[in-house]
Amino acid sequence: MELAADWVVGFVDGEGCFHVSINRHDEMTVGYQVLPEFVVVQHQADEQILYALKRFFRGGVVRQNHGDRSCLRVRNLSVLKEVCEFFSKHPLKTRKNVEFHKFRRIVLFMDERRHLNREGLLQIVEIAISMNTAQRPSLEKVKTALAESG
Amino acid sequence: MELAADWVVGFVDGEGCFHVSINRHDEMTVGYQVLPEFVVVQHQADEQILYALKRFFRGGVVRQNHGDRSCLRVRNLSVLKEVCEFFSKHPLKTRKNVEFHKFRRIVLFMDERRHLNREGLLQIVEIAISMNTAQRPSLEKVKTALAESG
Repeated sequence: MELAADWVVGFVDGEGCFHVSINRHDEMTVGYQVLPEFVVVQHQADEQILYALKRFFRGGVVRQNHGDRSCLRVRNLSVLKEVCEFFSKHPLKTRKNVEFHKFRRIVLFMDERRHLNREGLLQIVEIAISMNTAQRPSLEKVKTALAESG
Repeated sequence: MELAADWVVGFVDGEGCFHVSINRHDEMTVGYQVLPEFVVVQHQADEQILYALKRFFRGGVVRQNHGDRSCLRVRNLSVLKEVCEFFSKHPLKTRKNVEFHKFRRIVLFMDERRHLNREGLLQIVEIAISMNTAQRPSLEKVKTALAESG
């Protein structure tokens, strides 16, 4: 199945999700791991769409999700950079575009390895908190912990 | 906001719904009214997308839906014919395409006024029952009533 760029934009405007979580991780220098992910969920019957998107973005993993749902999940930073480049060239039309641009800033911060120091990580936490998909209580905890360690 | 055809296909693959209800209506010759509708629901913040789709299909009504949701609803038969022509030329890529083709058959039946006699209506009920979005118990009742009146 060949996907047109505009189709991908329309479909992701409807079904895509840009999400960033930040988790405690003792092996990281600053004690936290930043995990941005681009996710598309579909009914299992439409799994072939997820595989077509995976080919389109040349990356990501298709897995079974809860119940009868399947899910394409992109976590690899270089693939996420491709995803971000695509949606920069082909803007989303819903307010998901605002979410995307916050997500993109975080991905670019990570590409510049700014998440590996406290100041960069704090900026990432601020952006992540402002996103619609944010798990705010857990991010607020990270923010407080980082502020106290400063 | 200009919408590309492929974007519309992608977005409707994600967010569109083709639905047919059949309701008791004493003023109709066969006692039932067939109500096909094409619906797209969005968060109110993205209402402008619904207005753009309304312009794209040159018809439909944008209204507030439940809670913070807005909804584009197309019920006018000649606009529905335009919608059907569009998605025949630009096929949906998910299994929503199967739903669409059942919907289209019903719209074309109505355009040929076949819903105004018992045999045509029974065929429409059969197609409607087979759709994912079907309210089956109510359609089964209509089917039984029509069969008994034959």
